[in-house]
Amino acid sequence: MSTGRLTLPIQRGLDDQLPALLERLGADAVRNSDGTELPESVQDLATRVYATYFVARGDEDWARSHPQQRTQLYLMSPRVPAPAEGPLRIRILSGYFADQIAPDTTCDISRWWEVLDRTAGRTLAAEEWRVLGDGADTVVEIPRAQPHHVYTVSFLAFQLWDSTQMYNYVTNDWASDPTKVKEQPYDARHDETWQHMRSSLAHWLQDHPEVDVVRFTTFFYHFTLVFGADARERYVDWFGYSASVSVPAMEEFERETGIRLRAEDFIDEGYYNSPFRVPTATFRAWIDFQHRFVTSRVRELTTLTHEAGKEAMMFLGDNWIGTEPYGPHFPDAGLDAVVGSVGSAATCRMISDIPGVRYREGRFLPYLFPDTFRPGGEPAREALDAWLTARRAVVRSPLDRIGYGGYLSLALEYPDFVDRVEAIADEFREIHDRSGGRRPDNAPFTVGIINAWGSLRSWQTHMVAHALPYRQTQSYVGVIESLAGLPFEVRFLSFDDIRASVPSDIGVLINAGAAGTAYSGGELWRDPALQTSVRAFVAQGGGLIGVGEPSAAAGGGAVLQLSDIFGVDRELGWSLSTTRYDQPTEDHFIIDDLEDAFDSGDGAENVVVTSTDTTVLAMHEGTVRAAVHPFGRGRSVYLAGLPYTSSNARLLHRALYWAVNREDELADLGWAEDARMEVAYYGEGEQLLVCNASHDSVHSVVHSPLGSTAVSLAPGESRWFTQDDMRAATGAVTGK
Amino acid sequence: MSTGRLTLPIQRGLDDQLPALLERLGADAVRNSDGTELPESVQDLATRVYATYFVARGDEDWARSHPQQRTQLYLMSPRVPAPAEGPLRIRILSGYFADQIAPDTTCDISRWWEVLDRTAGRTLAAEEWRVLGDGADTVVEIPRAQPHHVYTVSFLAFQLWDSTQMYNYVTNDWASDPTKVKEQPYDARHDETWQHMRSSLAHWLQDHPEVDVVRFTTFFYHFTLVFGADARERYVDWFGYSASVSVPAMEEFERETGIRLRAEDFIDEGYYNSPFRVPTATFRAWIDFQHRFVTSRVRELTTLTHEAGKEAMMFLGDNWIGTEPYGPHFPDAGLDAVVGSVGSAATCRMISDIPGVRYREGRFLPYLFPDTFRPGGEPAREALDAWLTARRAVVRSPLDRIGYGGYLSLALEYPDFVDRVEAIADEFREIHDRSGGRRPDNAPFTVGIINAWGSLRSWQTHMVAHALPYRQTQSYVGVIESLAGLPFEVRFLSFDDIRASVPSDIGVLINAGAAGTAYSGGELWRDPALQTSVRAFVAQGGGLIGVGEPSAAAGGGAVLQLSDIFGVDRELGWSLSTTRYDQPTEDHFIIDDLEDAFDSGDGAENVVVTSTDTTVLAMHEGTVRAAVHPFGRGRSVYLAGLPYTSSNARLLHRALYWAVNREDELADLGWAEDARMEVAYYGEGEQLLVCNASHDSVHSVVHSPLGSTAVSLAPGESRWFTQDDMRAATGAVTGK
Repeated sequence: MSTGRLTLPIQRGLDDQLPALLERLGADAVRNSDGTELPESVQDLATRVYATYFVARGDEDWARSHPQQRTQLYLMSPRVPAPAEGPLRIRILSGYFADQIAPDTTCDISRWWEVLDRTAGRTLAAEEWRVLGDGADTVVEIPRAQPHHVYTVSFLAFQLWDSTQMYNYVTNDWASDPTKVKEQPYDARHDETWQHMRSSLAHWLQDHPEVDVVRFTTFFYHFTLVFGADARERYVDWFGYSASVSVPAMEEFERETGIRLRAEDFIDEGYYNSPFRVPTATFRAWIDFQHRFVTSRVRELTTLTHEAGKEAMMFLGDNWIGTEPYGPHFPDAGLDAVVGSVGSAATCRMISDIPGVRYREGRFLPYLFPDTFRPGGEPAREALDAWLTARRAVVRSPLDRIGYGGYLSLALEYPDFVDRVEAIADEFREIHDRSGGRRPDNAPFTVGIINAWGSLRSWQTHMVAHALPYRQTQSYVGVIESLAGLPFEVRFLSFDDIRASVPSDIGVLINAGAAGTAYSGGELWRDPALQTSVRAFVAQGGGLIGVGEPSAAAGGGAVLQLSDIFGVDRELGWSLSTTRYDQPTEDHFIIDDLEDAFDSGDGAENVVVTSTDTTVLAMHEGTVRAAVHPFGRGRSVYLAGLPYTSSNARLLHRALYWAVNREDELADLGWAEDARMEVAYYGEGEQLLVCNASHDSVHSVVHSPLGSTAVSLAPGESRWFTQDDMRAATGAVTGK
Repeated sequence: MSTGRLTLPIQRGLDDQLPALLERLGADAVRNSDGTELPESVQDLATRVYATYFVARGDEDWARSHPQQRTQLYLMSPRVPAPAEGPLRIRILSGYFADQIAPDTTCDISRWWEVLDRTAGRTLAAEEWRVLGDGADTVVEIPRAQPHHVYTVSFLAFQLWDSTQMYNYVTNDWASDPTKVKEQPYDARHDETWQHMRSSLAHWLQDHPEVDVVRFTTFFYHFTLVFGADARERYVDWFGYSASVSVPAMEEFERETGIRLRAEDFIDEGYYNSPFRVPTATFRAWIDFQHRFVTSRVRELTTLTHEAGKEAMMFLGDNWIGTEPYGPHFPDAGLDAVVGSVGSAATCRMISDIPGVRYREGRFLPYLFPDTFRPGGEPAREALDAWLTARRAVVRSPLDRIGYGGYLSLALEYPDFVDRVEAIADEFREIHDRSGGRRPDNAPFTVGIINAWGSLRSWQTHMVAHALPYRQTQSYVGVIESLAGLPFEVRFLSFDDIRASVPSDIGVLINAGAAGTAYSGGELWRDPALQTSVRAFVAQGGGLIGVGEPSAAAGGGAVLQLSDIFGVDRELGWSLSTTRYDQPTEDHFIIDDLEDAFDSGDGAENVVVTSTDTTVLAMHEGTVRAAVHPFGRGRSVYLAGLPYTSSNARLLHRALYWAVNREDELADLGWAEDARMEVAYYGEGEQLLVCNASHDSVHSVVHSPLGSTAVSLAPGESRWFTQDDMRAATGAVTGK
């Protein structure tokens, strides 16, 4: 039994059981959760104490006495066609939840609101429309609207209710609880509010000597989360900056950058700059602007925290907008640590790879809440699933700590869950101890993921709301999820990063995503310099893997602009007159150990062969699911989609080696013949970690720099091997 | 037993059997087929005689002595990326069949060939490239190609071999037959060749007194049919004009229209103006130019034919390019008749609706060839299938004649086939006799199909090679196939036809097709005038049915530009942040008699609801398959796809009535409660034709202006009812 690197939630009323439990699990930190209080005895526990702190909400007196300093939001009305005659009237709040937002009619509406004729693509002059009524009944009237053109109103609104608190309030029916109020968020951009935030924190720090670590949840701007008229979630974008706007911020932006903003810069035709949209230069500039503002203000808060002798930890949660953990200014924020929820291997890497902090903590599932801890629930099983999912990432890029959240009292009723947590914590600590917290040494080269976001959104591609799956994204998220646990270094590159040339450390480039999105790149691919750079890279021996609709931007006779590299193209109907005869091969290095037909999920359809040198690996009703093609001294692999499964991760692993002409070296740095086993090799200490990522018992031959041996692992088991272990291992097949 | 309206193929050696067979089947015309000769006794048969005549091939002496007057073709080389350094050399015939085509290096290459940098979208100056070698080894060298840019060469070629004759030659291995030569086509655009064609026909007419009808197969220009290096079909476009080019024609075009053509006008990025491409104005002008030329020359041939006392019939086949049966000049060609192959109800309508001729004949399947007439073959069953498929169209728009092709000797070995043909001919003649060759009277309104081609391609939408099915088109062809047999008048309208306003006789507009194609309309939908016209039409009470990606042209916040009418939009990933809750209803007029889940085939995916007024009728994994939405006084129906089945035809039938708010009248003009039965009502004679389109016995109540009755029909049976029949019918449920 080992100790440390584990945070547990605690609460009042468990004082007798706590010391023994903490010791058994080896927990060295405790925290409160939403709705729980730390027990009085917390200082007597031999652990560090985390406490949740909200910066931008919770002080209702302040919020109510400074209504002009509430946070704001840009929203678009419904799209409304004008009638055949007479004025068009648009009720702008139609479809929105009036308890959450109120139109801001106090600002200079002619400057900050916009009315657009979406059919003609024309912004109306301020004289062409006027505002009638107010609040939920606010109407914009366009007296001389063009008959049958579609109009929208873009308007600035006040946020009357913090989105997360509102969600909890509605979901938990707090309306019947007189102690609960609707918390209004306020904006640090207003100097008066900012000074209030500072002094509030200073007082709180003074009042809480028992706290070692301030767990900020989080800072100033909530990701975009808007509710509908029925109080249900209507729009949710974990990356959305729509709620970071205000007149002073936009004016300051213009002073700093010279860019005169308009509502449409945020409304974006109603798509609100979702991460799937190829970002405009102005939106990128706004992110950078707010990133600088937020991190500089956070720096002041962390300084106060440090001056009080405490550590500052950021929960990568609700109000994370502007912090941008992979942004250039994040290290300047002065944070000691980051903690975030781990929902997949990719989200685990999103946390464990964050630069600029001393340690990173993953909050593991399940959350100790009644939805899981109920009769018939299987919390121990869920904990194991979560661990096996996360472990792939933990092995590749170690977290420093793990933890759980929620109500510990619930967990205590499930002894098998407590047993499981004990085992997970021990296994986690052993990985950290034996690896020294370092990455394993079996990455043969670096894989570059290219998309319009680049490193800013490392491990965050194709995400909408946290890591929830969407049918349209599963076939692409699988690429990231696979890579999160595969033995390759991974770099996220923007198109700007590779336009002049592909960085020399890159072995294989991956472009994955649907046509027209920021992930595949959309119209950016029309740039000859970009195409030339990638062609030069592959022609000189680099690998290119395309998933879905890579480089899609129809023009010049190709849909996939790199179709000459891939040897396939998307069929939009225009080339149906071309006769197709292609048949898949049954024998290729990439698919050699695939047991069933390749599953490309809901990836691209209507993909056709365009070169006689293309080898099709998988096909379905005339559409290519997987194909390979030589190009100069390099190679390309095309996959229609890659939903995450261990088979598909294995296929990607093989494809990466094949793409760089190194398939002979596949097993050299650590390799299990069974796809369910993953192998990490550590040069220092000459040791090997073999993990069974499945719920099956697996028996497989493992190859490594320490030699080859047969290994049997129980469901979910991991096991370490030194060279001596390898020699001694039952069923060893070769030594080295 | 009735007689007439039937054409049979005959051949030598059957003289004894012919008179009795012709009498039994009621055949009043005979013809030869490819590879058969008319018997000597043909003049003794009491029938009219058709004879096949080829205008533009078959005279090898002429072809070989006038090599510059062979027909030509525009082709594009492969897309080739330039190397990192040094010249780029493109072997332009790579992938083509050197026996079929030869580059034309005799023309002014700098004028008629083009080299394009497809990456930069730049046409190279003539000084930047040069031609090396000749024939199959012709190479274009670009000494200073931009490294890693993709280049193509567009070149003019001679056709060395008629495409259809080549297909027959290769398929039937005529290489081993010394009597077969490779026939070279020659071009009527050259005056010398044209005079030769005229005089050849004049002589032939004189030499064939036994012939009553000259069956032209066809005239001057073959549809685009290009073979690959392996002699297999490589590119086939039934509508392609690529093989109608020549230097004199292009020069004449410039004189007539003022438009200076370039190779790219035909190459079209390599898509060769396929019918799926939104046609350019120049390509439309070229079609019109050749249509005028071809029909004016045909007029001379038909005049010669008439002067010889014979009729001129056009086989709507191989060399039909330029005739354009739905083009404005077709009636000027002076043809007496058209005959064409019937592969579906839609192709049957394509023939039976042709204006400007005295009669129209459908050549029915199966062709009397050994592939069907073989041990284990079921020619009688195939004949019934073909008849039931075609009968839907024949009832709605009568053909004047039917016929068969091939080797009659084969058919005589299958007595059940001869029985079947006898029954089909009798049934066909009865329909013609009782209807007087007129359409039934139960079309409540006209349905307008809108696409970029309009009436020029009536009944020809989504076709590639004849009526062969493609996975990408089946979901759209089903709309046309359904309509071909439904009781509505159908008009094909171009966007130009409706831009000012939708014609007043239109009840429902249909826009069906995939995004970016000529059928959905592509970028044409960005035109505010077009959108306004359709919105006005629907707002005033018109119906709009969209299938697949109707009005798709992403921009201004919508993918489907008419999403405000449809209440749904295509999801390209950009609006994934919008939360979706929609559930399909189980109860709606349109789906009331659907027994299984609606099958939208391989239609559009990722369709989402955009209006709270939308009613979803069918959904699958979050994507809308069918939905309805009100708009002003009108209604819209959205279907993701509509592959042809009797259920889907029924669903469209109901949707059309619903879309115009006339669902209460559904049964008024003739309606069977079972979808497998279709009803035609004839005001004149007050009679009803009820057809069972299925291979099941069907018992159903039939409603009509003559009253309602229960009807039982055997598989495939049709039955006529007068008012007296209705009264007398067993199980009659109401009278009138």
